[in-house]
Amino acid sequence: MLDVWVAGVGMTRIGRRSESLRDLMAEAAHAALRDAGLERPDAIVVATMNPEEFVGDGNFASHVATHMGLAETPSLRIETATASGAAAFYAGFAEVAAGLRRAVLVVGGEKMTHLDTPRVSELIGRSIDPYERSYGATMPALAGLITRALMARAAVSPRELAHVAVKNHANALRNPDAHFQRAITVDEVLDSRMVADPLRLLHCCPISDGAAAVVLTADRAAVRVAGIGQGTDTLAVRHRDTLTSFRASRAAASAAFAMAGFGPERVALAELHDAFAPFELMSLEDLGLVPAGKAGRATLDGETMLDGRLPVNSSGGLKARGHPLAATGLAQIVECVWQLTGRAEGRQVEARVALAQSIGGLATNNWVTLLETP
Amino acid sequence: MLDVWVAGVGMTRIGRRSESLRDLMAEAAHAALRDAGLERPDAIVVATMNPEEFVGDGNFASHVATHMGLAETPSLRIETATASGAAAFYAGFAEVAAGLRRAVLVVGGEKMTHLDTPRVSELIGRSIDPYERSYGATMPALAGLITRALMARAAVSPRELAHVAVKNHANALRNPDAHFQRAITVDEVLDSRMVADPLRLLHCCPISDGAAAVVLTADRAAVRVAGIGQGTDTLAVRHRDTLTSFRASRAAASAAFAMAGFGPERVALAELHDAFAPFELMSLEDLGLVPAGKAGRATLDGETMLDGRLPVNSSGGLKARGHPLAATGLAQIVECVWQLTGRAEGRQVEARVALAQSIGGLATNNWVTLLETP
Repeated sequence: MLDVWVAGVGMTRIGRRSESLRDLMAEAAHAALRDAGLERPDAIVVATMNPEEFVGDGNFASHVATHMGLAETPSLRIETATASGAAAFYAGFAEVAAGLRRAVLVVGGEKMTHLDTPRVSELIGRSIDPYERSYGATMPALAGLITRALMARAAVSPRELAHVAVKNHANALRNPDAHFQRAITVDEVLDSRMVADPLRLLHCCPISDGAAAVVLTADRAAVRVAGIGQGTDTLAVRHRDTLTSFRASRAAASAAFAMAGFGPERVALAELHDAFAPFELMSLEDLGLVPAGKAGRATLDGETMLDGRLPVNSSGGLKARGHPLAATGLAQIVECVWQLTGRAEGRQVEARVALAQSIGGLATNNWVTLLETP
Repeated sequence: MLDVWVAGVGMTRIGRRSESLRDLMAEAAHAALRDAGLERPDAIVVATMNPEEFVGDGNFASHVATHMGLAETPSLRIETATASGAAAFYAGFAEVAAGLRRAVLVVGGEKMTHLDTPRVSELIGRSIDPYERSYGATMPALAGLITRALMARAAVSPRELAHVAVKNHANALRNPDAHFQRAITVDEVLDSRMVADPLRLLHCCPISDGAAAVVLTADRAAVRVAGIGQGTDTLAVRHRDTLTSFRASRAAASAAFAMAGFGPERVALAELHDAFAPFELMSLEDLGLVPAGKAGRATLDGETMLDGRLPVNSSGGLKARGHPLAATGLAQIVECVWQLTGRAEGRQVEARVALAQSIGGLATNNWVTLLETP
């Protein structure tokens, strides 16, 4: 298996965008190619969760490649619900690691803000077990259920939960590509509109448009892919042993650390999938970054702030950078690479090993990617 | 790069099926696992073109894995329109070739017959360039345009075209898994209802349900993957240099033969993407299996019949075995493996090298896979 390196990264500003999905993806992809100093990749991996229903077009790998003027470059599409970007990164990694391609462009994106919220919720809800969906379960509803269990069993407090969102908004204020550019307070979170009890509006990520891209290569570059792990779980949440920890996150972390040959103690920066604020706390523990039961306290104590022991979501996270579904797993990796190479102006931290974690569906298909500067 | 072997194959009967898509996919996948003597693969690659709109469910990799009782086995989904099955085969190949997984289950399927034909046509049409679609272009309409050009420029005759369908129906009569189990005559083809001038109903593949699966492994088995090639082209048909040959097929063949280290002269059996009868003739020439301009004549002369020089579509092809979209690329490989291992009862031919060719969209994303018994 060949070593795989990140030769270039790029992303669009995340938010409410008027451009088409293909324009957003081309913008991010061209930025990554420029960053890699590469005119034409050997292959393209495209991530988008549901372009047929979000924008009415299918065959999207060919769509993006043609739109970029790369119609003759082999392209394919990967999908694992909201973790599609991370899965596409893995697929590109496998092609380069096998020696099948020398330089692969991986680009993910989503365009959603032109649809109304109930329609977006319905489309994202297709990721949920059909039987649970038949009882009206939506992503926020299931996340609310999990949050309630977390508060009951692990004594996570409302202030701890709120602080995740406050921290991530503060970080996004330093990220010009982030969806939100405003600070929020704990009181604002606790006073915001109820979405799915106990989750309020400011615990939840927004609906965003955007794209992100990465160039992977077998040629040595500044950042090496140290490990990638995938973890999965039952589609149905009701079939799981526990609600307060995600097996898919634990399995993904275990596989990624095994490939890397080191453990969580080496991780100096993490981008975690905080689609809902409690997920950041659960992930901290599931990935072994914070001892079990301590994530809420560690967050309140500032351990995960930019100047803390382990900065988490320096980009602003899904909560404040935004969550354009299939772009997100790649946007996390873009942030990690910018941090590792000293290009995270205004929010730069010291790190040689970074971790990105992406959650697909309601934690049915999760990914952990470890990046390092050797 | 490790050698990759096909350890097991399986498929459902293709046709109008009352089972759900997940049931069909599980049936094919369990058959392939049984054939491989494997209880649990290391990973699953799922191919389905558009489950969100065909059956209303997304996150389909997790959906299938969970339904099969393999929720803890990593799974992801690949899509390249109608070639999704072939692309998924490639993705599984890359994982095994890189040494990332030891045994990968690849399963593809589609469920379409519960929808009415205009709706199926609309959904498949999402693969077409949006501008061409805006003028009413459908797959049969574009294929009709291409057929007209083929008849004008390459002097392909109506009888030659009809004979493709006649041959493939005759083969399907020997395949218990095929959608159609009846012989047709040239006159029946020429008298059938016009679909998109000059294409008539019996030149076109049916709308089918079904699934097919393959187990790939790094452990030596009876059939080796000798080569895989992908070729692509512009989404828009109007942007191409020629209508009577597909660049995507030529590029895929060239890449596959380069990987295999041999040329088309070694191919003794081919499964070609005859979604429309003229595509079989074009593919024969694009892949170098028949000299340019000779495919029609070779077909009339019986060269591609079961007892001919190069049997083509012994399964019945898309025309008569049926075309459940993302299953098709894998169903072709299942047929090749059955033939190479002497398990194609009733239609067995002598072959040590077989070729499968899959067309994605209107030839925007094509694949050629070469299999051999060493």
